[in-house]
Amino acid sequence: MKLYEALTEHLRGQINQGIFVPGDRLPSIRSLTREHKVSITTVQEAYRQLELLNLVVARPKSGYFVRGQAPSHPLPTTARAAKRPMEVSQWEGILQMLGADKLAPAFSLGHAMPDLTSDTLTPLLRLWARIARRGDLSLLEYDSLRGNLELREQVARLATHSGNQLDPDDIVITTGCQEALFSALKATTEPGDVVAVDSPCFYGAMQAIKANGLKVMEIPTHPEQGISLDALELAMEQWPIKAILVTPTCNNPLGYTASDAHKQALYRLAQKFDIAIIEDDIYGDLAYTWPRPITIKSLDTDDRVLLCSSFSKTLAPGLRLGWIAPGRFRSAVVHSKFVATAASSTLPQQAVAAFISEGGYERHLRKMRGQYQRNRDRMLPWLEAHFPAGTRISHPTGGYIFWLELPEEIDCVELNRRLEGEPYCIAPGALFSASGKYRNCMRLNYAEGLTAQTEQALLSLLKTFPEQNTSIAN
Amino acid sequence: MKLYEALTEHLRGQINQGIFVPGDRLPSIRSLTREHKVSITTVQEAYRQLELLNLVVARPKSGYFVRGQAPSHPLPTTARAAKRPMEVSQWEGILQMLGADKLAPAFSLGHAMPDLTSDTLTPLLRLWARIARRGDLSLLEYDSLRGNLELREQVARLATHSGNQLDPDDIVITTGCQEALFSALKATTEPGDVVAVDSPCFYGAMQAIKANGLKVMEIPTHPEQGISLDALELAMEQWPIKAILVTPTCNNPLGYTASDAHKQALYRLAQKFDIAIIEDDIYGDLAYTWPRPITIKSLDTDDRVLLCSSFSKTLAPGLRLGWIAPGRFRSAVVHSKFVATAASSTLPQQAVAAFISEGGYERHLRKMRGQYQRNRDRMLPWLEAHFPAGTRISHPTGGYIFWLELPEEIDCVELNRRLEGEPYCIAPGALFSASGKYRNCMRLNYAEGLTAQTEQALLSLLKTFPEQNTSIAN
Ligand SMILES: Cc1ncc(COP(=O)(O)O)c(C=O)c1O
Ligand SMILES: Cc1ncc(COP(=O)(O)O)c(C=O)c1O
Repeated sequence: MKLYEALTEHLRGQINQGIFVPGDRLPSIRSLTREHKVSITTVQEAYRQLELLNLVVARPKSGYFVRGQAPSHPLPTTARAAKRPMEVSQWEGILQMLGADKLAPAFSLGHAMPDLTSDTLTPLLRLWARIARRGDLSLLEYDSLRGNLELREQVARLATHSGNQLDPDDIVITTGCQEALFSALKATTEPGDVVAVDSPCFYGAMQAIKANGLKVMEIPTHPEQGISLDALELAMEQWPIKAILVTPTCNNPLGYTASDAHKQALYRLAQKFDIAIIEDDIYGDLAYTWPRPITIKSLDTDDRVLLCSSFSKTLAPGLRLGWIAPGRFRSAVVHSKFVATAASSTLPQQAVAAFISEGGYERHLRKMRGQYQRNRDRMLPWLEAHFPAGTRISHPTGGYIFWLELPEEIDCVELNRRLEGEPYCIAPGALFSASGKYRNCMRLNYAEGLTAQTEQALLSLLKTFPEQNTSIAN
Repeated sequence: MKLYEALTEHLRGQINQGIFVPGDRLPSIRSLTREHKVSITTVQEAYRQLELLNLVVARPKSGYFVRGQAPSHPLPTTARAAKRPMEVSQWEGILQMLGADKLAPAFSLGHAMPDLTSDTLTPLLRLWARIARRGDLSLLEYDSLRGNLELREQVARLATHSGNQLDPDDIVITTGCQEALFSALKATTEPGDVVAVDSPCFYGAMQAIKANGLKVMEIPTHPEQGISLDALELAMEQWPIKAILVTPTCNNPLGYTASDAHKQALYRLAQKFDIAIIEDDIYGDLAYTWPRPITIKSLDTDDRVLLCSSFSKTLAPGLRLGWIAPGRFRSAVVHSKFVATAASSTLPQQAVAAFISEGGYERHLRKMRGQYQRNRDRMLPWLEAHFPAGTRISHPTGGYIFWLELPEEIDCVELNRRLEGEPYCIAPGALFSASGKYRNCMRLNYAEGLTAQTEQALLSLLKTFPEQNTSIAN
């Protein structure tokens, strides 16, 4: 056993024994070198290992801390590796979930909508009305192709919270994060290429992969640590992978946040194979810790990361406002934006820019982060008490989405089919895989917590399960 | 000479001799059969020929009329046929024109912006403010993937004016006409295919062709009659053309409106080769005649036409609201919309739906049609008096854009380069071709007529021309 491995084991034991509890500061690097008579590098490497294990977290200028309380319930299992790159299908299932062909879509337990009823959103609507009333001609004109300058300035300022140093010129405003992902894929690949993704993977990203004539390589992803770097490396050795698309912070749907060390290692891997990283950070600002986790982009020394985000999850999806910091791929991204939409809607851009600069965005975030975390903690015991034994539930680090892995015999695709005509529906896990995984999984929204409507729908859903006499808690 | 040819010549002679003048009703089919002792089919065919020649126009239930006054000035010439399908380039030129990399873009003489100062737009802004103030939660939500239902209902109703019978379900709302064109191309082609276009062709459409991995086949286009059907047929025999993309009504940039017979013939050609027609109708509601000209879509009996339009030219481009009636390609278009933008911004959709249903849109159109036609007629003599001899000017049938063909020695690309640093710029014709045509052409906006700013910029522009001692009028 190497020195750093021994030290890692020693510290890990202390954490497991409760000598250090979540939130505790761990000994400084200097004191450990003295105590164990090892080099600084050895201590640093041990801490890096502990970060990779998601046991400790580094805080700039303060040192290393034991990670927030580890969940006591069983987490979802890590899926097995896909054998090869796959064509994406599932489009019919998505249409059904979106209710695109129905006049009155059913109440979706699995939708990804934030709580829109918060009074911290009222100033946004008021600003909107004020700007429209002012009736400035610029409201009616095309905004700049790369997006409203004031909005780009605000986005650049906010991005410092996740460690990014961006210039407004590094940013392109998009019609939602969806356009950001679409243009990122278009800019980094050619038809026929393969894109590696964390698995389960947001279905919108997978459909964008399909639309660009690409295949998807699903990489096993740990529900707390993130995408498996070993499996990723293996896949990159075997297949013509041109980009890695990941959501490493407050992942949709698994809820994990990868450690800084994991993000760094992923970045190094991309460097080694000289490929691009498409980093979806759409839930990043809703992390329950503050300051919020860093992005991979903040570690990007050679401009290979395309950071994608939007205000859909933090403010409101109806704005259709997102952004991308495309690094060295900027000119291709701008071209994609020009041909797909030419510009984003002017008034929403002006309103959101004003809302952020007046402090409304950060005020709203502060409130929602707390609310979502409380809702997670209140809803979890209810789920444990009511869902069948064997159910595994994610432990989200931000956002407002649970991922439930139900007993194997429960087929959520089939379930949703049986729910047609009911006033509610679910988001079946199968939408998040191109290789037929996660049929016994579902996504569950808790943005507004366990409302009467949600509770009623869940109880009615549970009645449809084959076996319901045992709950996780039993 | 066949009977119908003789009759065609006879009627053509009468029109040329001034026996029938523009606006006159021509003899009914019945009276001509009696007078010339020929069959109904013969008379019908003669009238169809006269329509193809753009000499007469058919009005439903009223008969045939001599076309509006033919322009007395020389029109632009019809470009020669391209030898083969081409890759699209010109992206740098577009970026330069859009001022995408400048903080304060110069005043563009060639932009395609409508007059936004009209008081008939004020109610739209007022509605906007009212809707935002009402603060309905639905404002913040994703609108339906296919777009706001009320807006689709209004679009379907308006489309009856151009002869279309559309159901709201036949329509998908898009982020501008640009997204409509992009998704139409995506839905009807595979990378490597060829798309036939009228030439000159709107540069945004050509860039979308490029982005989809397609080549463009430029078809010679007559400045009054439209795309050459003979040249188109020849091209379709020779190349793997999968779609025809045309703007047959109030064409950008040539300003022509093809006759109903020409539209019908184009449609039959598409049927013969079993390919799709992408019909860009973005300026169609701004035709100077009322009722406005029909679309090819209105003749579509087998759902092969994808009708694309938007409110960018009629109301305001900053809305970023367009629509597509994709016929049999609906599900592919919906997929493209989902992956590129997921939905269009909610508030603008609600505001425009309310504006149309309150009659604001039709009121605005009535006013703008008159204004734009008056501006055309006032600006034309000024151009004839000031531009060098040999300049040819289009005779727009709607919208607010002139196409100027300058003497061959004037290179507008070079000109624009020399104008850098000046407070104004032009839209060089070269952007409208993939094969290097139209370097001596430019587009000129007259939405607000000859304002002081426009006159000053034009006079200063004219000073840069190599030869300026002769004007067209001399
Ligand atoms: C991970 C992730 N990325 C992107 C998107 C698309 O976001 P937008 O609505 O801003 O286009 C979503 C929305 O559900 C998402 O969950
Ligand atoms: C012929 C034509 N089609 C499409 C467009 C794009 O329209 P929109 O701004 O609605 O995306 C334009 C805009 O200039 C145009 O002139």
